[in-house]
Amino acid sequence: MMSDFSSWVSARQSRFEDVLKRLLPQADATPQRLHAAMRYSVLDGGKRVRPLLAYAAGELAGAPVERVEIAGAAVELIHAYSLVHDDMPCMDDDVLRRGKPTCHVEFDEATALLVGDALQSLAFQLLSEHRLNDDAGKQLQMVKLLAVASGSRGMAGGQAIDLASVGKQLTVPELEQMHIHKTGALIRAAILLGAHCGDLQQAQLDKLDHYGKCIGLAFQVVDDVLDSEADTATLGKTAGKDADNDKPTYVTLLGVQAAKKMAAELRQEAMDSLAGFGAPAQRLRELADFIVMRKY
Amino acid sequence: MMSDFSSWVSARQSRFEDVLKRLLPQADATPQRLHAAMRYSVLDGGKRVRPLLAYAAGELAGAPVERVEIAGAAVELIHAYSLVHDDMPCMDDDVLRRGKPTCHVEFDEATALLVGDALQSLAFQLLSEHRLNDDAGKQLQMVKLLAVASGSRGMAGGQAIDLASVGKQLTVPELEQMHIHKTGALIRAAILLGAHCGDLQQAQLDKLDHYGKCIGLAFQVVDDVLDSEADTATLGKTAGKDADNDKPTYVTLLGVQAAKKMAAELRQEAMDSLAGFGAPAQRLRELADFIVMRKY
Repeated sequence: MMSDFSSWVSARQSRFEDVLKRLLPQADATPQRLHAAMRYSVLDGGKRVRPLLAYAAGELAGAPVERVEIAGAAVELIHAYSLVHDDMPCMDDDVLRRGKPTCHVEFDEATALLVGDALQSLAFQLLSEHRLNDDAGKQLQMVKLLAVASGSRGMAGGQAIDLASVGKQLTVPELEQMHIHKTGALIRAAILLGAHCGDLQQAQLDKLDHYGKCIGLAFQVVDDVLDSEADTATLGKTAGKDADNDKPTYVTLLGVQAAKKMAAELRQEAMDSLAGFGAPAQRLRELADFIVMRKY
Repeated sequence: MMSDFSSWVSARQSRFEDVLKRLLPQADATPQRLHAAMRYSVLDGGKRVRPLLAYAAGELAGAPVERVEIAGAAVELIHAYSLVHDDMPCMDDDVLRRGKPTCHVEFDEATALLVGDALQSLAFQLLSEHRLNDDAGKQLQMVKLLAVASGSRGMAGGQAIDLASVGKQLTVPELEQMHIHKTGALIRAAILLGAHCGDLQQAQLDKLDHYGKCIGLAFQVVDDVLDSEADTATLGKTAGKDADNDKPTYVTLLGVQAAKKMAAELRQEAMDSLAGFGAPAQRLRELADFIVMRKY
């Protein structure tokens, strides 16, 4: 089963890389430096967790894969822009991402700023210029879903809560609120956007959303555990930086063992949300394991 | 006639401020500092040229004003985000905007980065969550129009060309290419989005777009003239900074007199594009004069 899943992941990752290469502006198109930096920041990197979730949710919803991967690309571009901006000196000031120099190191700060801005615009261009649902009104709802997940009540808001938390003693519920926004909003959006390319009932979408909420949090808890245990070479990004930056994490608040237990419980809650879907939700179950059991 | 126009402008500006106040997240909503900074960066400032153009184009197209001003707000949020990011130390490093400290000075750099990011998301949220055209497919085209105008082939691309031009001797056509993207794309989007809330033929939209292209360039030429002639107190932003930053302008390339002549010619070409519309295009004609003859 796992080898079948592994080949599903590899095939989707490879296919998705081609999708991104096709949808990003070509590096020889004016302005060339900006376009080269956009491609540098998006291509050849990352586990593509959000697009994989979109593929799996799309398969569950019986959606055409050509539509699902456009939606997945929109989410991944938002994710990529947030990493470029997050790495900038005025935010986390990080020099390494996915084993490569960060965008502002490889290019310059002004270019990194524009790369993030332009990637966000491109995400909304993708969601509006390709037909993703036969019902244009439903597609408008997809645009809204990604906009809300990205904005001040979603991912960007989570970043702001994160900024405000530096040097403070947060409670576990406060930390959860931060991550539900910062990481969770986009993971849930990936799942729902994949599903919205097909046809599911609202009650089914609600279950998928709860699954997304659980694995989004689990993803972050596991991130904190890995950040405290792994080394920089394995992670492909600077290890231990959250603790160094005096940022609260699940590990600093709960300890490693309790954080691992929390991740396992969230995984189980995610699995329970999928109970009614049967076999078609198998990829989503496998992805929950993939997220909780990953080593980098 | 001008006094009628003046009261039209005042009434629209005042009404639009209320629209923005309503559409922006409230300052007491979490995350409060981010939301306060978003409101600080958008409210109480600017001539609202783009929304005024949207109002005028919407009136020409017989569009409901409640729809037009949502579209105008989306464009203004993109404009506001670009100013916040443009003022940051890694870009123009400016401390004064609309007579107030810039966002990163009043708050901090990380917050300014997130303010810009979240304002862009909010722009696309507005275009997707409000009904702006009875035909949802046409509304999706409006989303695409703003995304393209904002992105690497529009405004952000113009900023990148601008960055690459510092210290270089551009030709007038190269300078025009930069401004057609940097300023022009969003001005054209404002006009077209206002018009798309109503019902016009493609040939009419093309004429409006040509009007927009001309006044967009005229706007920049006048900006360069004012930047070279006015003082900081009148402009509400740092005067003479482009020349100081060794950036090419129409004044440095052509001289003040030829730049003024160019603005006048562009105004005339804009007027010619409106010839077929008759009286309903009167506000757009007055706005062309407003843009070319402004003193700040």
